[in-house]
Amino acid sequence: MAVYTEVSDEAVAGFLAEYDIGRIVAFRGIAEGVENSNYALRTTGGDYILTLYERRVAPEDLPWFLGLMEHLAGRGIPCPRPVPGRDGSALRHLAGRHAAITTFLPGVWPRRIQRAHCAPLGTALAKLHLAGEGYVPERGNGLGPHAWPRLLAAIGTGGDMLRPGLGTELEAALARILAAWPAGLPRGHIHADLFPDNVFFLEGRISGLIDFYFAATDLFAYDVAVCLNSWCFESDFSCNVTKARALLHAYDAARPLSAPERAALPVLCQGAAMRFLLTRLYDWINTPAGALVTRKDPIEYLRRLYFHFEARDEHAYGL
Amino acid sequence: MAVYTEVSDEAVAGFLAEYDIGRIVAFRGIAEGVENSNYALRTTGGDYILTLYERRVAPEDLPWFLGLMEHLAGRGIPCPRPVPGRDGSALRHLAGRHAAITTFLPGVWPRRIQRAHCAPLGTALAKLHLAGEGYVPERGNGLGPHAWPRLLAAIGTGGDMLRPGLGTELEAALARILAAWPAGLPRGHIHADLFPDNVFFLEGRISGLIDFYFAATDLFAYDVAVCLNSWCFESDFSCNVTKARALLHAYDAARPLSAPERAALPVLCQGAAMRFLLTRLYDWINTPAGALVTRKDPIEYLRRLYFHFEARDEHAYGL
Repeated sequence: MAVYTEVSDEAVAGFLAEYDIGRIVAFRGIAEGVENSNYALRTTGGDYILTLYERRVAPEDLPWFLGLMEHLAGRGIPCPRPVPGRDGSALRHLAGRHAAITTFLPGVWPRRIQRAHCAPLGTALAKLHLAGEGYVPERGNGLGPHAWPRLLAAIGTGGDMLRPGLGTELEAALARILAAWPAGLPRGHIHADLFPDNVFFLEGRISGLIDFYFAATDLFAYDVAVCLNSWCFESDFSCNVTKARALLHAYDAARPLSAPERAALPVLCQGAAMRFLLTRLYDWINTPAGALVTRKDPIEYLRRLYFHFEARDEHAYGL
Repeated sequence: MAVYTEVSDEAVAGFLAEYDIGRIVAFRGIAEGVENSNYALRTTGGDYILTLYERRVAPEDLPWFLGLMEHLAGRGIPCPRPVPGRDGSALRHLAGRHAAITTFLPGVWPRRIQRAHCAPLGTALAKLHLAGEGYVPERGNGLGPHAWPRLLAAIGTGGDMLRPGLGTELEAALARILAAWPAGLPRGHIHADLFPDNVFFLEGRISGLIDFYFAATDLFAYDVAVCLNSWCFESDFSCNVTKARALLHAYDAARPLSAPERAALPVLCQGAAMRFLLTRLYDWINTPAGALVTRKDPIEYLRRLYFHFEARDEHAYGL
């Protein structure tokens, strides 16, 4: 469910009058996505996505996100391009929310990840990292390592109903990760949430990278670690090294991974698993039973975390 | 939320190979709708809707629904047209469900009903009734008057938590409605669920009538009564007689309402209010608290029912 805010047809028509993209032809809520309300919008001028920003997105960050998307799209990354209104501003208001129209991207996100998806993904991620250069403003990663102790404290023993002793276990794991967290690795703008439902494929090629609302300025190799976690594990939580190798080799071919980046992969993967484990756990505990969102299972990322703690070095990921 | 069944990208690609409508370009779940899973599907050949039939739709009725849509579309009604596969059959299987592809219709359903919507609606409903002629097979109305006692019995005193004494009140109301239910009125194929979210408008004109999965062979004027209930009441549950008059006059201009049909409007409206009150009540009681659907308030239709019991004759609706 990804329509939290209902927008009336008159409100959309009035909103479109602020743009130069034609008159409304169709307007349907999109089921995918969990953070914001998204509508497929067709006008006499073409196809667009209308996004109304909800809860988790801080309004003060929106200009940064939209600016990054504009920058990346201008450098050939297939990401949604913010569409400015007649006054030049892409960030506007609709139905009591901040709102933006972006371009529509074709393609389908892979429900079942194949090995053949992983090399294009690695290439696209490296290109995204390189294309981010020159976008000057930075944004700290609000869900990066600094945030994890606070998240864990907010969860407290709330996870123990899922798994007895989970709170204590995660405290020890987090201390170990933070103690080993690498310094000095190459950094820049990262997507930070490039899960399969944010990547569109068309005839085997990547046609779209979407949902930049967790993007931040952080370690490039951490973004790689997020993808290793979300693309390269099987449903039994075993790591598919063939997929990981394909992803890493393709990334490395477009943006070579330095020796320190390679060496840091296990701890970066541990951190990425911890980040999704913590936010899922937080949501699990704090989502009212009757809410219209699907709670994602936190334990899936605990299982990944175990794997990454076993990983001695980058060879565990096929490098 | 209207995606109950997730369909993999490979499964869709394989499914499309059974058709002659090109290759997949985009595929997004649609948030609207509550009964079935709907996807917006774009191929190199155009735009379509892919529907997977869920729970309430009886598989044996699907050929009748699709046949009716084909018949109506062939007579100029702007309804989704089933798209046949290469073997000529529009009703197929996908992801363990019955499934069909239909044409995409432009337009936007009115979130806030204006008076100006009601005349086009009346005309479209009358044309739909006239266009149904010649579609020979009949389908009994599974949610018509015959079904209401059984529904009420299944609810029992379950509604009393919403409103003390509701069960007893509805028993008396239903007995009164059924005793006065008219015989011999003109009948044919009706939509039976033409709520605002099933009607698309484009620049003031109706561009689409969708969701024929409650359609049945029943009294034409009962379909009018369903629309009076769903289009002509304000948020304070007062009847907007200006809207009702616009709807009825436009309908009557395209398909004249006979004197017995006019006289029966109050009881038909009572019956239509009872039908939606009962199904909403049933769903209210039987929807698990954590389910991914929004429960609709049954009491809205109790309030309408009171209005219709006060209505002495058709003049209450502006005729």
